[in-house]
Amino acid sequence: MRGLMMDVQLTLPAIERRAETLFGAVQVVDRSADRSIHRYTYAAMIARAKRLAVALKKLGATRGTRVATLGWNHHQHLEAYFAIPSLGAVLHTLNLRLHPDELTYILNDAGDEIVLVDQDMWPLYQKLQPTTVRHVILMGSGPGPERSYNALSYEDLIASAQESAFEWIDIDERDAAALCYTSGTTGQAKGVLYSHRAITFHCMNWAMVDNVAICRRDVVLGAPPMFHINGWGLSFVSAMVGAKLVLPNRFLDPESVLDLIASERVTVAAGVPTVWLSVLDVLNTGRQRYDVRSLNRIATGGSAPPTSMMRAWIEQYGVRIIHLWGMTEMTASGTVSLNADDDSDGPSNDALYVCLARQGIPEPFIEIRARDENGLIPWDGVTMGELEVRGPNVAAAYYGNGAAAETFTADGWMRTGDIVTIAPSGSIALCDRAKDLIKSGGEWISSVALENALMGHPAIAEAAVIAVPHPKWGERPVACVVVKTGETVTANVLKEHLALTFAKWMLPDEFHFVDVIPRTSTGKFLKASLRERFRHLYGKTTQQ
Amino acid sequence: MRGLMMDVQLTLPAIERRAETLFGAVQVVDRSADRSIHRYTYAAMIARAKRLAVALKKLGATRGTRVATLGWNHHQHLEAYFAIPSLGAVLHTLNLRLHPDELTYILNDAGDEIVLVDQDMWPLYQKLQPTTVRHVILMGSGPGPERSYNALSYEDLIASAQESAFEWIDIDERDAAALCYTSGTTGQAKGVLYSHRAITFHCMNWAMVDNVAICRRDVVLGAPPMFHINGWGLSFVSAMVGAKLVLPNRFLDPESVLDLIASERVTVAAGVPTVWLSVLDVLNTGRQRYDVRSLNRIATGGSAPPTSMMRAWIEQYGVRIIHLWGMTEMTASGTVSLNADDDSDGPSNDALYVCLARQGIPEPFIEIRARDENGLIPWDGVTMGELEVRGPNVAAAYYGNGAAAETFTADGWMRTGDIVTIAPSGSIALCDRAKDLIKSGGEWISSVALENALMGHPAIAEAAVIAVPHPKWGERPVACVVVKTGETVTANVLKEHLALTFAKWMLPDEFHFVDVIPRTSTGKFLKASLRERFRHLYGKTTQQ
Repeated sequence: MRGLMMDVQLTLPAIERRAETLFGAVQVVDRSADRSIHRYTYAAMIARAKRLAVALKKLGATRGTRVATLGWNHHQHLEAYFAIPSLGAVLHTLNLRLHPDELTYILNDAGDEIVLVDQDMWPLYQKLQPTTVRHVILMGSGPGPERSYNALSYEDLIASAQESAFEWIDIDERDAAALCYTSGTTGQAKGVLYSHRAITFHCMNWAMVDNVAICRRDVVLGAPPMFHINGWGLSFVSAMVGAKLVLPNRFLDPESVLDLIASERVTVAAGVPTVWLSVLDVLNTGRQRYDVRSLNRIATGGSAPPTSMMRAWIEQYGVRIIHLWGMTEMTASGTVSLNADDDSDGPSNDALYVCLARQGIPEPFIEIRARDENGLIPWDGVTMGELEVRGPNVAAAYYGNGAAAETFTADGWMRTGDIVTIAPSGSIALCDRAKDLIKSGGEWISSVALENALMGHPAIAEAAVIAVPHPKWGERPVACVVVKTGETVTANVLKEHLALTFAKWMLPDEFHFVDVIPRTSTGKFLKASLRERFRHLYGKTTQQ
Repeated sequence: MRGLMMDVQLTLPAIERRAETLFGAVQVVDRSADRSIHRYTYAAMIARAKRLAVALKKLGATRGTRVATLGWNHHQHLEAYFAIPSLGAVLHTLNLRLHPDELTYILNDAGDEIVLVDQDMWPLYQKLQPTTVRHVILMGSGPGPERSYNALSYEDLIASAQESAFEWIDIDERDAAALCYTSGTTGQAKGVLYSHRAITFHCMNWAMVDNVAICRRDVVLGAPPMFHINGWGLSFVSAMVGAKLVLPNRFLDPESVLDLIASERVTVAAGVPTVWLSVLDVLNTGRQRYDVRSLNRIATGGSAPPTSMMRAWIEQYGVRIIHLWGMTEMTASGTVSLNADDDSDGPSNDALYVCLARQGIPEPFIEIRARDENGLIPWDGVTMGELEVRGPNVAAAYYGNGAAAETFTADGWMRTGDIVTIAPSGSIALCDRAKDLIKSGGEWISSVALENALMGHPAIAEAAVIAVPHPKWGERPVACVVVKTGETVTANVLKEHLALTFAKWMLPDEFHFVDVIPRTSTGKFLKASLRERFRHLYGKTTQQ
């Protein structure tokens, strides 16, 4: 028997209409490519988004058309975020840090017909060989080099379109709204095709108290690149609750981020831990003083945030840390670490950090389980297994890529590739990516745990631990560390530091002092590159 | 083009599994019929709910079966809340304050096959004449008078069922989960058939910051009767976020409510304004002192909360007021009054109360509009019109009652019967129920505004203003007031008090001092009864 409720759909245009009618006067602020500040309102933004939609429709965009973007976090990109899904078309955000060959593959695999490109990304775009693209639109506010580029001007398109020609259409919440390729370190990139439902579900979760808790009074810094899981959905959730939105363009250096936090009175920011490590470093050691009193919480994830970093933000700056775990395949997040895991009146200080270092419990309507070679693991906080997930925001398949079927179980769960333990409370702790786990003498060593401990040493800024093939032990851990400016430390000191909490056989045999740890296009440590560099450290082994 | 996300359904069993796996140790506390405190955990509650489901299945309950409850707020009723929808059956909560004839009509209209009845409701149930009921189950923990009643014992059923026999079934979120009849003051009661989707959507809304903001750290007092819109969904949202739940049984007298708040350290409570008026009165004038320091917010709605009441809670007791507007047809709420309507750094004290007295802006994915005889009204905060709503939690039709089709517009909105203004911000202000609005000399007078002003007078505890037929003016306002214990006041003083803010022609001609204002079965003022009492005050008119 069906219920007798309205069949109203949870879609991005519903969020757009909401922001237009209720939050029209709320500010949207972004940095332009020349670093200047651009400031307008949701009403003005949506008026332009509607004109963009009208223009795109004239260019042939309709239900299901893939319209790509290659750009940073700014207001034109934001307008595209609303315009494209409002047509029933698919917003395909291209990761501009990828190699041109990979971008070419992704553009053509997606079958993108229209591409919006930042002016300063034009040199990159010229290296691509798209086969399905019919129109290229140049974003940016410069004097318009587009004629010489044989491309359309974004601002000309907006100027030529009538807002009154825009019409809301009915969209099924299961329809595709956005597309994002996940560029695994191995294998071909795979597309995740988000439904309106998955994105709006994510928005509702991030507006909940036991999550990022984004609300009307917030000023949200949308630091995650808009090509990375829809910028973690921050534009959409901000529009849903009516929060002021601040977009930093490509300027994610600590000084620029701190400038924006101070000038716009940002209350909540999000981003991978490496961003907040760098910001913290400048706050603590930089010559300039920044006012971060408005900031009251940071949502972070993508890789494990070091406890020392969380402690510094919380204790020195009074900023709450919301630690989430997620994936491109999960429309951003799937679990969140709450400050309270139990019934007590609040954890002690140390218990807080133990709790916060975990990736936390699943968000509502998301289910978890983990599996080792013997089947599903117990929730004992000790046994390690590969995490599997299920939920309305989880990919069921990859776009046009049947080869990835091994990612999904026969009973409809997704294999995440993350090795975790699950506590009796249901809180997960990420031990490693399946491929980053170190197996030494038949025993597992968590690279994440070693990294976290190394970054807890006062002299260490960053640390990455990798598995290196070893003729006797199979694999051994090797540490690459970046020493803080003005500090010195030796391998022996670090080894002694780790020996306080790890068994002797778990300790890295080698400590390499490096200037910088290479990162992926989304800011995580690029361990594949380090593994390649050190693969022959113990001689050539058959395991490679 | 469809997205490629998992088709995971938003259902009540998903919330049940969540509470079982993540919040098993969290407490559920209720008062028994003998006033004693019963205390167990979500794990224990759900284990019993599963056994109840097994027992109900044996009695023939399956997908679509209507299983009714006639009971107060206690743990057995809570178990039924989870057990019945987990079978795909429909939880039909009967309003035990209704007349036996109306209950008989409702039982038979719904086609209930099984009924769970509180032991002390047995005398009421005996007066009913059900035609479809096959099994009656007596809830309660007494010595079991059920044999003489020819009814089954709830506890015997639980004892006889095996938890291991329970199986989760797949349920479509659009399937019916619950049924609640709205007993309008006129006409036949009409059933609202809630889908799993509508209820879970409501839960997500109430867990958001800009709403009741229920979270893991909360202790929730489920004061709204469980037969009234699923107790405003508090049991379900508490289970979803893992909040401790406290159910007061039938003991809603101020002293009992205050006892529970103090002993269980309740942080958030909900209920109609009349409950919180009475509680406030006892707090301020009672002989006993109660500790309400744990309480930090009250969610209220159902009728307009007097500003004086909100001011007292906020300023004397530091309790935030969350003012919501909703209907049985809206799965509880549809709008919420935020403390911040604009971009300023927070409203001034007076502006806060102006803002809080409004019913607020729509919750996410809910849309509003209002209509007068000239069509849709402007959002100017002045023009009055009947509110129409649309959203995933709004009824699209009544159960088995085609005659109510006039409630729904041709383009799929619901007419609420509430007369409102809509401010430019999108915040609504309830002027009156369409039927309570007073039309005097061709001009509208809001009874709610007069009541609110009267209750702002220090000598007045409660006030209701009604329209009385008048030979010259059509209708005139008449006030019925309850004076606070120990206070005295005259009609002239009240008239002068009102004249400070109302035009002279709007002032009530008569002030009737009464001991008590009659209430509906859900605690609102029963104006129909007052109208009946005073209908001939100005002589017999043709308008009646």
